[in-house]
Amino acid sequence: MGNTWIAVDWGTTNFRAFLMNGDGACIEEKSAELGLLSVADKRFDQALKAQLGSWLNQTTNIYMAGMVGSKQGWIEAKYVSLPATPEQFLQHSVAIQQGWASSVKIVAGATCINACGQPDVMRGEEVQLIGLSRIANQNNFSAILPGTHSKHAIWHQGKLESFATYMTGELFSLLKKHSILGLNLDQQSLSSQTFYLGLELGYEQSLNSILFSARTNRLFEKIAEKDVLEYLSGLLIGNELSHLNREEKHYVIGSESLSNKYAIALDFLNYQGEIVSGQACFLEGMYQFYRLDLDK
Amino acid sequence: MGNTWIAVDWGTTNFRAFLMNGDGACIEEKSAELGLLSVADKRFDQALKAQLGSWLNQTTNIYMAGMVGSKQGWIEAKYVSLPATPEQFLQHSVAIQQGWASSVKIVAGATCINACGQPDVMRGEEVQLIGLSRIANQNNFSAILPGTHSKHAIWHQGKLESFATYMTGELFSLLKKHSILGLNLDQQSLSSQTFYLGLELGYEQSLNSILFSARTNRLFEKIAEKDVLEYLSGLLIGNELSHLNREEKHYVIGSESLSNKYAIALDFLNYQGEIVSGQACFLEGMYQFYRLDLDK
Repeated sequence: MGNTWIAVDWGTTNFRAFLMNGDGACIEEKSAELGLLSVADKRFDQALKAQLGSWLNQTTNIYMAGMVGSKQGWIEAKYVSLPATPEQFLQHSVAIQQGWASSVKIVAGATCINACGQPDVMRGEEVQLIGLSRIANQNNFSAILPGTHSKHAIWHQGKLESFATYMTGELFSLLKKHSILGLNLDQQSLSSQTFYLGLELGYEQSLNSILFSARTNRLFEKIAEKDVLEYLSGLLIGNELSHLNREEKHYVIGSESLSNKYAIALDFLNYQGEIVSGQACFLEGMYQFYRLDLDK
Repeated sequence: MGNTWIAVDWGTTNFRAFLMNGDGACIEEKSAELGLLSVADKRFDQALKAQLGSWLNQTTNIYMAGMVGSKQGWIEAKYVSLPATPEQFLQHSVAIQQGWASSVKIVAGATCINACGQPDVMRGEEVQLIGLSRIANQNNFSAILPGTHSKHAIWHQGKLESFATYMTGELFSLLKKHSILGLNLDQQSLSSQTFYLGLELGYEQSLNSILFSARTNRLFEKIAEKDVLEYLSGLLIGNELSHLNREEKHYVIGSESLSNKYAIALDFLNYQGEIVSGQACFLEGMYQFYRLDLDK
């Protein structure tokens, strides 16, 4: 069977799996729209086995991360209190005994008290951050992980130090689908000028003071109807980024389109930013777990 | 027929009508769940006539306000640019010719450039503010009109000077119904302690930094599941009120339950507040239009 192993990212809407070699290179990958919520009768074991299929002839050493380790998932994995090292995340992973597998582990999530003094949680992003620490070869860095619940994270002296959650993606989706701001919108464009306009206002003003302007600027035709969502996106992202430290560079980890949008926003707002592939970070992070586990 | 007249508040979800005497006192009132959006084939004339029924034997002198004067309503009434006097709102009202009525007028709305430099609009609230200027007998005041789109307004030297819109009510509703924060909530309580906790945080922090704490505080059982919506309400209202001027008293105009909530919030945050009935303000404002129209 050699030193192959499997990395799985299993979230609420998607399943992604990677067949890996002992040097951390990806041999083969597959994905399915088999989110946790669509697994019949919560038979996660059967679903996983079916998805991995013939890979299991090569290896049954499996590392998983993401919402599969949440209350709604397969088995709840702990949230590790920050600051924490990669070793500590592995120590707090949950091993699931399966007759057909040599090892199935779900990596722990992270919790901290954020800058507002409130408890905060992440699950899945900690793997990407561990991966980034190797890819960037940095002991200290700042990173943004845009998404439904965007995360701003600080890595300090080889540990994940702290982070904060912004509901930017979910707010955008809610306002687009269910609010007066998204009502009866035609086909939307990708107007960078309108995005910049939103960024500037969002950066300068408090969020609830400016949201309604996505309605009024449309009403008075200062923004074309086709540009409303770009404006709203600018307002929300500009507002989120106003919380960043100006002194340092911020890595952006995520899907290509969202990362590009954030990189454009960082540039426009005169921050230093650098995009790193979210998948590369995830695989490198999982590889760290694989290696640490071997060394135990 | 005497000096009776009719005041109508016709919005997107409700229809309310008041039979008034020449001294501005209400003789009779009626309301119906006949929002603008539920008027069949947009036959607003027939709907109005049917609703007013036998009142029309006494008077057909009708003043209307609210979304009935919007694009989605009966006839679009102008937005008057601020600052504006009550006379200017009447001048810009729209008269609708009806065979069965002596006069049907829809009062104009208001527009201004708000504190964020963006265009802002109101429709209906300007009537309540005009009424409040008489009830409070003040030439200068500040008022909050809580609701789906909460308004903070300034009345200065006998004119409606400016205002700003906060989407507090709509955000609360969206987050409750469609976001992860409102997911699978049991029966909710009215916990004032949790409301205060939310107020304090919402007042101090930026909105998108604290919203997710309604999830995490529940996850870590720092807030009981039954108190989550009170906490969320506190976050949103506290954040909205952080934009108020500390130096002056703020009138609160609205429905009883919402006004009480805002008054409690103002008190907790050490602002001076005073509740005035939204309906009393509306009727007093409409009475001003009736009188100004008589005097023409």
